[in-house]
Amino acid sequence: MSKIQAAIDLLIQEAEDLCIGNSIAELDHLPSALEFCRDYYAKNSPVVIRNAVAWPAIGKWTPEYLVEKLNDKIVDVAVTPNGYADGLATQKGREYFVLPLEKRMKLSELIVRLDDPMGAIHYVQKQNSNLSQDFPELASDLVMGDLDFAQQSFNKTPDAVNFWLGDERAITSMHKDPYENMYCVISGYKDFILIPPHKLSCVPRSTYPTGVYKTSDSGQFYIDPLTDEDGVEQLTEWVSIDPLAPDLAKYPEYSRAKPLKVRVHAGDVLYLPNYWFHHVQQSHKCIAVNFWYDMEYDSRYCYYRMLEDLASKAS
Amino acid sequence: MSKIQAAIDLLIQEAEDLCIGNSIAELDHLPSALEFCRDYYAKNSPVVIRNAVAWPAIGKWTPEYLVEKLNDKIVDVAVTPNGYADGLATQKGREYFVLPLEKRMKLSELIVRLDDPMGAIHYVQKQNSNLSQDFPELASDLVMGDLDFAQQSFNKTPDAVNFWLGDERAITSMHKDPYENMYCVISGYKDFILIPPHKLSCVPRSTYPTGVYKTSDSGQFYIDPLTDEDGVEQLTEWVSIDPLAPDLAKYPEYSRAKPLKVRVHAGDVLYLPNYWFHHVQQSHKCIAVNFWYDMEYDSRYCYYRMLEDLASKAS
Ligand SMILES: O=C(O)CCC(=O)C(=O)O
Ligand SMILES: O=C(O)CCC(=O)C(=O)O
Repeated sequence: MSKIQAAIDLLIQEAEDLCIGNSIAELDHLPSALEFCRDYYAKNSPVVIRNAVAWPAIGKWTPEYLVEKLNDKIVDVAVTPNGYADGLATQKGREYFVLPLEKRMKLSELIVRLDDPMGAIHYVQKQNSNLSQDFPELASDLVMGDLDFAQQSFNKTPDAVNFWLGDERAITSMHKDPYENMYCVISGYKDFILIPPHKLSCVPRSTYPTGVYKTSDSGQFYIDPLTDEDGVEQLTEWVSIDPLAPDLAKYPEYSRAKPLKVRVHAGDVLYLPNYWFHHVQQSHKCIAVNFWYDMEYDSRYCYYRMLEDLASKAS
Repeated sequence: MSKIQAAIDLLIQEAEDLCIGNSIAELDHLPSALEFCRDYYAKNSPVVIRNAVAWPAIGKWTPEYLVEKLNDKIVDVAVTPNGYADGLATQKGREYFVLPLEKRMKLSELIVRLDDPMGAIHYVQKQNSNLSQDFPELASDLVMGDLDFAQQSFNKTPDAVNFWLGDERAITSMHKDPYENMYCVISGYKDFILIPPHKLSCVPRSTYPTGVYKTSDSGQFYIDPLTDEDGVEQLTEWVSIDPLAPDLAKYPEYSRAKPLKVRVHAGDVLYLPNYWFHHVQQSHKCIAVNFWYDMEYDSRYCYYRMLEDLASKAS
């Protein structure tokens, strides 16, 4: 075994011995800002807060309510043949990282699509937006102040407030973000699979040509490769493994990843710390809202960058 | 350059680019628990709080006051020929890590010793003790509650409350501790030299035979090597460099350590996070009290352990 691999193994073993990243904490009450900051944020450690928020939205928001309340507004929808809006797919023997077909449609049309189990898979995954600005009609159904404990720890306003509504076949493939993430399920449930950042070397990644889904005149999906101005293929680094069906023969390192699973129900809030890998599935027509806060680039981040460098050299 | 050295360099460069460990923050007010937890503790980032504590002890505690108040109590004193109570010294061409001669004497005698510039160097460095239990007479001169902001972040009571009183020639050599350290200067000042943990590879360390100072019948100091039951030398890993006179020809890596300097005055409190290297000097008869809290072993600690492993292999 190389010296680099031995150092990475030591990292994983130390964390194992200290039970770091071996389970997801649960709370049955909203923590104080100090409690949250000290016990979760400072440690880059996730927590699910059960029945955290008793917002008017909970129990009230259904796709039909949204149609009515938003006056059948036009929304951006990610459409895919397989449910993966940002994920890997193969075409003519070549594996691509594929972006969804982006469609704009009325909410009422979206609902018809969601109720067609044979059709393409639709997912509203409005990212980098500000929910309260885009949908001011909905603001009064949320009580943002309930998340002050987190906002006070992050000490900034959210970079993005995202709105999620989708088909149960829609899946967010394994990835990580440079954000502190407060994920609030409003209706239905979300199933998260999580892997802590220090397990980076257990999560196989590769560089893929990038494509975007298009449909032919006959309505068939195909992958249109993306190129830059000079015709050079755009490349994207992505996680190679499917945690729902991991190919351990091909990626034996994944056997040490020991992914964590947690179901987040309506009213629950998941704090997902920066750089945690996450894979997300959902109940049909699950509605969720989440808040992304820019992470702080502290010494832990620098150590993580070192790990990235080592992991790329160990293999 | 080896792959390991390149990864360590990346760590140091990332931190440099993000200005991590490039300066010591200063506050002119006591922070709230949340502010302290979020801005310093969570980031493993030191801070000096100027005029933090207006305790009765400040302005009141002098060696003479202590003699009177403590009824000329007997105290444990570390005595050395050179001021280094835990540090390196050479005897017959061999370098040792040397523990002090431990003496018990009346406070009044200590003061006579402190005022003898030609004599051995005396330092009260009562560690692993509980000041309020040992010296209950002094408790009312401190207002421990002023440090609640820190205690609430660490979420535990201190493992040790230490009392320091010494000769200006007494020096604490460069080392690190697995503690969160709240260091309060009561009288005089302390000069700290600090190096952040991620600079581990810039701080040369080695393993030394361990000795303890003894005095011959004529009063001459000598180093008595320590051995275990089987006569095997006891070894101690210690920092090889003297930050007051670094030998850069021998230890060129130290040129990247860029140590930070901060003078902590009476009434100031320094928060020194776990694993920061520190070297300490002081004004004559400086009096200080500090609180050690067991650190939390989180993912940053695991990354640090990986760095230790890598640093030992890079050289
Ligand atoms: O809800 C989802 O489908 C994905 C959520 C996600 O990836 C995120 O919030 O970063
Ligand atoms: O004050 C000193 O001389 C040393 C302090 C120190 O090393 C500590 O508090 O850990």
